[in-house]
Amino acid sequence: MTKVGIIMGSKSDLPVMQEAADILDYLGVKYEMDIVSAHRTPEKMFEYGKNAHLRGIKAIIAGAGGAAHLPGMVASLTPLPVIGVPVKSRNSIDGWDSILSILQMPGGIPVATVALDGAKNAGILAAKIVAVAEPELMERLVKYIDELKQAVLKTAEELK
Amino acid sequence: MTKVGIIMGSKSDLPVMQEAADILDYLGVKYEMDIVSAHRTPEKMFEYGKNAHLRGIKAIIAGAGGAAHLPGMVASLTPLPVIGVPVKSRNSIDGWDSILSILQMPGGIPVATVALDGAKNAGILAAKIVAVAEPELMERLVKYIDELKQAVLKTAEELK
Amino acid sequence: MTKVGIIMGSKSDLPVMQEAADILDYLGVKYEMDIVSAHRTPEKMFEYGKNAHLRGIKAIIAGAGGAAHLPGMVASLTPLPVIGVPVKSRNSIDGWDSILSILQMPGGIPVATVALDGAKNAGILAAKIVAVAEPELMERLVKYIDELKQAVLKTAEELK
Amino acid sequence: MTKVGIIMGSKSDLPVMQEAADILDYLGVKYEMDIVSAHRTPEKMFEYGKNAHLRGIKAIIAGAGGAAHLPGMVASLTPLPVIGVPVKSRNSIDGWDSILSILQMPGGIPVATVALDGAKNAGILAAKIVAVAEPELMERLVKYIDELKQAVLKTAEELK
Amino acid sequence: MTKVGIIMGSKSDLPVMQEAADILDYLGVKYEMDIVSAHRTPEKMFEYGKNAHLRGIKAIIAGAGGAAHLPGMVASLTPLPVIGVPVKSRNSIDGWDSILSILQMPGGIPVATVALDGAKNAGILAAKIVAVAEPELMERLVKYIDELKQAVLKTAEELK
Amino acid sequence: MTKVGIIMGSKSDLPVMQEAADILDYLGVKYEMDIVSAHRTPEKMFEYGKNAHLRGIKAIIAGAGGAAHLPGMVASLTPLPVIGVPVKSRNSIDGWDSILSILQMPGGIPVATVALDGAKNAGILAAKIVAVAEPELMERLVKYIDELKQAVLKTAEELK
Amino acid sequence: MTKVGIIMGSKSDLPVMQEAADILDYLGVKYEMDIVSAHRTPEKMFEYGKNAHLRGIKAIIAGAGGAAHLPGMVASLTPLPVIGVPVKSRNSIDGWDSILSILQMPGGIPVATVALDGAKNAGILAAKIVAVAEPELMERLVKYIDELKQAVLKTAEELK
Amino acid sequence: MTKVGIIMGSKSDLPVMQEAADILDYLGVKYEMDIVSAHRTPEKMFEYGKNAHLRGIKAIIAGAGGAAHLPGMVASLTPLPVIGVPVKSRNSIDGWDSILSILQMPGGIPVATVALDGAKNAGILAAKIVAVAEPELMERLVKYIDELKQAVLKTAEELK
Repeated sequence: MTKVGIIMGSKSDLPVMQEAADILDYLGVKYEMDIVSAHRTPEKMFEYGKNAHLRGIKAIIAGAGGAAHLPGMVASLTPLPVIGVPVKSRNSIDGWDSILSILQMPGGIPVATVALDGAKNAGILAAKIVAVAEPELMERLVKYIDELKQAVLKTAEELK
Repeated sequence: MTKVGIIMGSKSDLPVMQEAADILDYLGVKYEMDIVSAHRTPEKMFEYGKNAHLRGIKAIIAGAGGAAHLPGMVASLTPLPVIGVPVKSRNSIDGWDSILSILQMPGGIPVATVALDGAKNAGILAAKIVAVAEPELMERLVKYIDELKQAVLKTAEELK
Repeated sequence: MTKVGIIMGSKSDLPVMQEAADILDYLGVKYEMDIVSAHRTPEKMFEYGKNAHLRGIKAIIAGAGGAAHLPGMVASLTPLPVIGVPVKSRNSIDGWDSILSILQMPGGIPVATVALDGAKNAGILAAKIVAVAEPELMERLVKYIDELKQAVLKTAEELK
Repeated sequence: MTKVGIIMGSKSDLPVMQEAADILDYLGVKYEMDIVSAHRTPEKMFEYGKNAHLRGIKAIIAGAGGAAHLPGMVASLTPLPVIGVPVKSRNSIDGWDSILSILQMPGGIPVATVALDGAKNAGILAAKIVAVAEPELMERLVKYIDELKQAVLKTAEELK
Repeated sequence: MTKVGIIMGSKSDLPVMQEAADILDYLGVKYEMDIVSAHRTPEKMFEYGKNAHLRGIKAIIAGAGGAAHLPGMVASLTPLPVIGVPVKSRNSIDGWDSILSILQMPGGIPVATVALDGAKNAGILAAKIVAVAEPELMERLVKYIDELKQAVLKTAEELK
Repeated sequence: MTKVGIIMGSKSDLPVMQEAADILDYLGVKYEMDIVSAHRTPEKMFEYGKNAHLRGIKAIIAGAGGAAHLPGMVASLTPLPVIGVPVKSRNSIDGWDSILSILQMPGGIPVATVALDGAKNAGILAAKIVAVAEPELMERLVKYIDELKQAVLKTAEELK
Repeated sequence: MTKVGIIMGSKSDLPVMQEAADILDYLGVKYEMDIVSAHRTPEKMFEYGKNAHLRGIKAIIAGAGGAAHLPGMVASLTPLPVIGVPVKSRNSIDGWDSILSILQMPGGIPVATVALDGAKNAGILAAKIVAVAEPELMERLVKYIDELKQAVLKTAEELK
Repeated sequence: MTKVGIIMGSKSDLPVMQEAADILDYLGVKYEMDIVSAHRTPEKMFEYGKNAHLRGIKAIIAGAGGAAHLPGMVASLTPLPVIGVPVKSRNSIDGWDSILSILQMPGGIPVATVALDGAKNAGILAAKIVAVAEPELMERLVKYIDELKQAVLKTAEELK
């Protein structure tokens, strides 16, 4: 069953956002992926935000660049946790606009913001959220963290 | 007839946004004023954006602070020109978040951004827009610009 | 009849500013285009600013980079709405200088600032302003917004 | 049963972090609160991070200012989702240091960052995460979002 | 004979700009002082810039805040060296807008920019420029620099 | 007779600083050029600063990148006007370090700062300073400003 | 025997720099304190930098604000490790100028930079450097770190 | 005997950090080099920090990018002086995140921060620290500083 919704404001965000999908695949979490533009398809965004939790989605990952309104607007429409990915798009001012537009949400409507272009971490965070109700997923996450450690230890060995 | 709609994301924006109302009063342009929160009342915002031009409004002034999504979201819902006022709210990071969230709109959906806390200029800009179809208002604007000049010349006289 | 004046501080701004012209062509709004440097041709700028509204121009789009004084100076010379395009020129500090020089105008003299290199949006904003007195142009704008929506919905289809 | 762990780097963060506790109280989510300094009590931090999920905690909220390492370091020690609150402490450079130290985590170790001093939103986000396994909490969240809306609509009424 | 012209965009800049006048008094350099707004009195600015060197002025000090166009515009109108003082005015974004608007002039039209609110240094710089043709003024400057040194040495003595 | 001293902190600054030399050549102002590192050759810098005005130099242009101390340190050693050129060197943080290290001098010791990599303007500024005592140079500067204007008017013609 | 030299550019830096002296007192490290201005007393700075290591000094702490050249210039004159304290002085732009002027030193001439107004940490760092040749001082440092830990653990107890 | 420990958060930091090793080689100071990730191998970091001084290490150089926690965390675990190198990694926001995460340490736990990508200076600083107990190394440092001077003087000769 689909647990995570990945949406992005433009097709140009796909190369970044694909990393969220890849890590969810790796961790065995089902997701859906869609393009939903806050500014060009506001009605679709409204419907997406209003209905996601009714379809069984547990967490939404929303990526956008520039004046990035998608994560915050979806967060205003859903009771689900929304993870925002600031994308350093072509027109972005070094990413500052994307970061601040997503991070600085007013009291009452949080967005869980990750690093600039940090879609991979958005995927892991979504998995951690889904794992609240799925102990076996948490075990996979524990294993994944150990894999990260082993990989670093191995490169350290190689350095010597 | 009401020509300009002034909206703001929170009542705390009122001291700043009142300056837009004051200058429109001074220039003799009818306006309405409302609190419309992109994040707390998204449905109201949708209706406001969809209907403003049908009610005869010619320009919308939208002020907001922090992750300021109101001006951009309203701009995505209306064919009218939208003027955005970045408000340096209590939680804002020196105003940079408000400015970038409003200014850096994607291609297709412009917001006419004015200076930080620049609601007075937003009012003047709205009047200039309304004046496109009202020659006598443009004359008042020409007169207003002359008043600004005379005021500066007078303080310059006093300095000497 | 020419409705929009597009001016820029240097020929090197042309690749950016051309986007304003292109979208005005698409929307069927007549414009003129000129190079007017605030610092190198101040007299020409003065004449341009003083006379534009007498020639029937309804809105001015001014683009400049670095210490970008052209939009603000023209705004001080005309009763027309002036739209400022911060251009990320070769010597610009990531565009911050252009943005702040155009955006942070003092009370009384507004410039409608759009995103960094956002000349396309400047064109749309100018069309929205002209449309205040031309209902059929507003209809074209409504249609244009719908085209943007259809394009996004189509790429979303393709993603699936 | 305690579901959320709130930790902070210094007692001086308490006025900010208390808002996380208050909203969790309001939403009926049990939490614990502790001072854990990444730099002054690294051993305590290690133990906290290693054991939280074994004690039944579902989400950790970590607040810190300046070179804010607590959220990221705890995230490296736990499979739980960690929510980071950048605190604008006395020595902070307008909060930029806190924000970037928490937000810009490397791939593999996410921190769900909220706005500067955004502890209230951290509390709501934690509740949304706990709600993944507690449908009745999600209903309270839906109700809470509606309360936010009603409050804005009421101030809008008063403005008129 | 008046050697230095001090101008500022607004009367509110006077407390800062007075420091330029004070140090010129101290160094025995004659100056004049006026309010000239680039945006509110563009004609006066044009005349000032075109005529200053004809009246025997040797250097112009121009202070302004926000989108500070006065120094650069005057520089475009005069062959004299223009010294720009970025003023941290009430609406300024921590002074960044004033600094960048004055500093980042295009090739061909320099402005000698001093520190934020650095009107005292603008006065000294103007005196150094006038001193190119007045050897006795250069001697006073050498003496002034020595006075600065003695003052620091004295506070150092007091510390011990 | 040599009127302007051009110094730079490193040979890698030469491509930028050459523009100062080129414009001085064009304007017929004699200059000398040297590499003087504040940090690697402090003694040479001391001698240079102490003696420049004794050799008949009228203005010093100093360029440096990163923690750019050369302009300010030379300014502390000479009664001459010092023009600082912030160079965007390889290790610079987008030029901000160079700009702030040169611009933000304490009261008493001004540096006339020009734009990032603005060596051409530094050369023109030096010529304007030398021209205080050389009327025929001021005439060449008036002519140069007119050439800039004609060049812009010509490209404007070509655009049409 | 005096082991650490504390210098600052101005008497106004004393309230910040006193913290370095206080912690050195606490750790039992002898120090001297002086005002040495890079820009107002360059000769004194030269002598100080050239001679410090000959007098048995092991580390120099230098604090300055704005265009803070003192730490870097002293570092260019001494083989000793120099610790730089960026001071947020009255004229500083939020401390950014002080930080970048001290931190961004060119290859070959390091300055050990601490946090904005971080004189206490500068003192501890100096003690750590002196301790390289004094094992009993290192033991005091180990004890000091433990005291920090106990203080945090105690406030954590009080919170519960 | 190994005197300096060089660690870095990721193998991708090696090209930058190698410069620290190279200059230590040149100065004849023994070092060790390892990859220690604060976030992926926190246990290894703990052991490294706890034991370095027991193995005779006199100074630790730690380089990291993004939310760079390694230098500060190691500093919290060792009585040794820790030198932090902010690395401009692929995901870094122009290096600001790395700089602020390393520089802005709280009172009690200093990190001696060098310039962005300034590993060479970190090596020199480590040598200066080791030299506190090794007079002959200080002599090599004096000689090295003289070599820097001669190199600049030579390029200055070539320019002429």
